[in-house]
Amino acid sequence: MERTKALEIVEKQLTKARFEHTIRVMETALDLAKHYGVNERKVEMAAILHDYAKYRDPAEMKRWIIEEKLPQDLLDYHPELWHAPVGAKMVAREVGIDDSEILSAITWHTTGKQKMSLLDQIIFIADYIEPGRDFPGVEEVRAIVKDDIDQACWLAARNTITYLMSKNQPIYPDTFQLYNEKLGRNMNAK
Amino acid sequence: MERTKALEIVEKQLTKARFEHTIRVMETALDLAKHYGVNERKVEMAAILHDYAKYRDPAEMKRWIIEEKLPQDLLDYHPELWHAPVGAKMVAREVGIDDSEILSAITWHTTGKQKMSLLDQIIFIADYIEPGRDFPGVEEVRAIVKDDIDQACWLAARNTITYLMSKNQPIYPDTFQLYNEKLGRNMNAK
Repeated sequence: MERTKALEIVEKQLTKARFEHTIRVMETALDLAKHYGVNERKVEMAAILHDYAKYRDPAEMKRWIIEEKLPQDLLDYHPELWHAPVGAKMVAREVGIDDSEILSAITWHTTGKQKMSLLDQIIFIADYIEPGRDFPGVEEVRAIVKDDIDQACWLAARNTITYLMSKNQPIYPDTFQLYNEKLGRNMNAK
Repeated sequence: MERTKALEIVEKQLTKARFEHTIRVMETALDLAKHYGVNERKVEMAAILHDYAKYRDPAEMKRWIIEEKLPQDLLDYHPELWHAPVGAKMVAREVGIDDSEILSAITWHTTGKQKMSLLDQIIFIADYIEPGRDFPGVEEVRAIVKDDIDQACWLAARNTITYLMSKNQPIYPDTFQLYNEKLGRNMNAK
């Protein structure tokens, strides 16, 4: 699918502000794809479609989680987490994307997980650092993302967990596993 | 087994300071057992024996983890976590304790986990709040432990995770599962 066609499809699903965020994620992700030598067409498509399900009704997303046999523990967590894995299923069914690497990057863009591919990592971190983002710690992640994307993902996971805990929010297990995995990598590298 | 006999056995395994900690955990745990109506003999035995393996050689504990088929992911985490599950196995083999409730409380006293029994919770929280402990947040836990032991365990898990993250340490999955579980309980109660 061409970039223009994909943008046209996703624009209908999003608010204007969210569509502008999507463009920034695409540009950030493409920059990282060039830097890390990752397939640019796949990165572009995953970035454009990553928030496809963002404004779907939670009741509809809940049905998809049950009917598509997504991890049922999602239902115990905030609906904000649902749009990523549900979005991947919708993008497959409604947009006809069948590339498993693109769908994986969409699935994991919010929580992260252990053993992310470089493509997964690029979408996860581009969503976190795109130029419209402004929260504590984001500059530090921007500063190192081209030197060490693993460390960038670890910092993003750590900041997210710290933020959620300060708000007494639950932490999705995959985010904790990402934190532990990349921390282990850092410790082993020492 | 009588209290005196168990204390005699465990005293040989511990430093003097750690033995004194054990006595304080026993007293704190017995107070909670009376308050919550939990079997005092089991609470006493679990408290006395909870740190039985504390000073065993990490290489020896590693062998027990492998040979006793304990969760192998323990080996990816700090040896400080090993003495609890290994201690339960040693207490069974070397001391002859075969009560699964006592062994469970010893197993989970450091990390906690989801779905702890009241006995598990009493040992976990007594170890956290015994009068010799002094770290940020412990007073808050002491203040509520007789009103709401679930909330006390949640606070202890939250404080532990916050502390470990501030030191860039890995978090054992059962600890954040405890955090999430008790948080969900609080949220559902609202």
